[in-house]
Amino acid sequence: MRIHEQHFRTIWQEANTVCLIDQTRLPFEFVTVTVTTLPEICHAIRSMQVRGAPLIGATAAYGVALGIQAVATDQQLNAVVKELIATRPTAVNLAWAATRMQQQLQALPVSGRAAHAWQMAAEIADEDVAQNLAIGQHGKMLIESKAGVNPQQVVNILTHCNAGWLATVDGGTALAPIYAAHDAGLKVHVWVDETRPRNQGASLTAWELAQHGVPHTVIADNAGGHLMQHGQVDMVIVGADRVSRHGDVCNKIGTYLKALAAFDQDIPFYAAVPTPTIDWQLVRGADIDIEMRDADEVAYMQGQGKDGRLQQVRVIPHESQALNPAFDVTPARLVTGIITERGVFSPNQLSNLQLST
Amino acid sequence: MRIHEQHFRTIWQEANTVCLIDQTRLPFEFVTVTVTTLPEICHAIRSMQVRGAPLIGATAAYGVALGIQAVATDQQLNAVVKELIATRPTAVNLAWAATRMQQQLQALPVSGRAAHAWQMAAEIADEDVAQNLAIGQHGKMLIESKAGVNPQQVVNILTHCNAGWLATVDGGTALAPIYAAHDAGLKVHVWVDETRPRNQGASLTAWELAQHGVPHTVIADNAGGHLMQHGQVDMVIVGADRVSRHGDVCNKIGTYLKALAAFDQDIPFYAAVPTPTIDWQLVRGADIDIEMRDADEVAYMQGQGKDGRLQQVRVIPHESQALNPAFDVTPARLVTGIITERGVFSPNQLSNLQLST
Repeated sequence: MRIHEQHFRTIWQEANTVCLIDQTRLPFEFVTVTVTTLPEICHAIRSMQVRGAPLIGATAAYGVALGIQAVATDQQLNAVVKELIATRPTAVNLAWAATRMQQQLQALPVSGRAAHAWQMAAEIADEDVAQNLAIGQHGKMLIESKAGVNPQQVVNILTHCNAGWLATVDGGTALAPIYAAHDAGLKVHVWVDETRPRNQGASLTAWELAQHGVPHTVIADNAGGHLMQHGQVDMVIVGADRVSRHGDVCNKIGTYLKALAAFDQDIPFYAAVPTPTIDWQLVRGADIDIEMRDADEVAYMQGQGKDGRLQQVRVIPHESQALNPAFDVTPARLVTGIITERGVFSPNQLSNLQLST
Repeated sequence: MRIHEQHFRTIWQEANTVCLIDQTRLPFEFVTVTVTTLPEICHAIRSMQVRGAPLIGATAAYGVALGIQAVATDQQLNAVVKELIATRPTAVNLAWAATRMQQQLQALPVSGRAAHAWQMAAEIADEDVAQNLAIGQHGKMLIESKAGVNPQQVVNILTHCNAGWLATVDGGTALAPIYAAHDAGLKVHVWVDETRPRNQGASLTAWELAQHGVPHTVIADNAGGHLMQHGQVDMVIVGADRVSRHGDVCNKIGTYLKALAAFDQDIPFYAAVPTPTIDWQLVRGADIDIEMRDADEVAYMQGQGKDGRLQQVRVIPHESQALNPAFDVTPARLVTGIITERGVFSPNQLSNLQLST
């Protein structure tokens, strides 16, 4: 990703430490953090310094490497993996990456594990980047076909939450097709859902689109349906934290509402995910364990105060309580297609993809 | 309404001035404002110190009284009415109240108009209160029937924006049935949509429910669909700024998304309005002029800082723009019923109500 014209990933290794961008400070402060221990990695995941299903996966891989640096016995490896998986329950990539590390490292002599773990984590990170580039190319064709014969035709794409560079190691999932189309000279404009309560749209998606020079407009989460009713949205592309084998899409809370509106207005609705986000064991999306996060994420809001510093303000009465479910599940009947690194598949084609794996 | 155990209306006359609660300071500061001129009344409407379709109507009536106090000629009266109607385009009550004042005052000698205008404004305010009480009684029956034979059964009602006491002179529209049910000993619990970008749910609905002791929980606007999918919402009741003759409901931006989810999950969706909110001239809700408000309402958020004082924080990058449509239109096909002071009507029964007016 390009930040102030310099190239960055969201996570990388430096010697035996892990560096990452602290996403809780964006868009007003760009800060990188150096992490040296497993508890620090777990904190980074839980506090959402890193977030987004693919990035959480890569972070877990780096977390295993950190966690077995000093002691790499089976017992230690199993404890590290268990601790990482417990940090956030919904995204499948986390368990997928941690388990992949565990299985491959267990097959090695204890003495060789620490060094190999770093190498594996780097491989997982590189794979993520490669998958996202491929997602971008497949998704770009959908945008091209919307633009039709007129390359100056602006294609308006609505997205929810952040499934861009910042949600991955690099390249993005939902935003990958948008970057690919923009870089190829197509005219795209992105409607960026604010994405309460944590504002990943307003603070992360808007920021990374601005860094890359992609035209965009932030809207309240409430506004998308109205824009769709008035012909101002050509397609919806979101990411996902988990996709069921039949194409139910578990993504940031509020995605279901946008999918309903897109369906009602006959607008295509896509989820863009690398195949590790598809949970082949999962038959019904409704069975996914939905994370309940701290109610204070609803009660308080962070932003930049008049003095330029980050501040939190309370936005609900002191007498009131709040509830904060983090994800919802959009049933496959509302989903036009899943954009993966291997192509675009309608929900009922997904299982063919598994068979050919 | 009960505030700190004392009785208030949202607007009232004191000598030749108008007093109102400044709703931009709630829920953290309770401040009343004394208004003595027409420009001040227009500012109060535009800046949303007063808001909510019925309250805007009453405010316009008091505005006419203020505006013709010194000079009550036809020319002055017409200019005052025109200025008031221009403050906000979407709510029908504003034009309805201002035009009613205009027509009746024009029939009087100029010398008698100023005194009569105050009397008419008080009548409009009292009518609003009476209508809302009747809405409460009709709507309470819907809640009773949801509770069924078990009076201890909690009925979960989702509401969007604020259509409570604060949106009216007193009594509320969407919240009137909830207060009536609560006061009658039924168990109700309200899911309060935050209602970005101006947070009328989080700051006004939550506050007035807390003042009255009604159990409630604030949720992000994104969360309602998920709660409906999981059987945690028994009915949706919202207010409206305008209802078409066939039951299209124009209400706060985001209402359409909740109506879609309610329809998808087979949950009844009601709009509660006094009949002046029904625009009998309006055939298609889609023809309503939707107010675009200042993008800064999306870019900044107000809340209580650590020092206890109200503060604004910026929540989108400085490089990004925002768009702020204030209302959307829910088509009648998604609406179970319109709760009015004259009973509950399905959209296709509404026109009978006009015939019997």
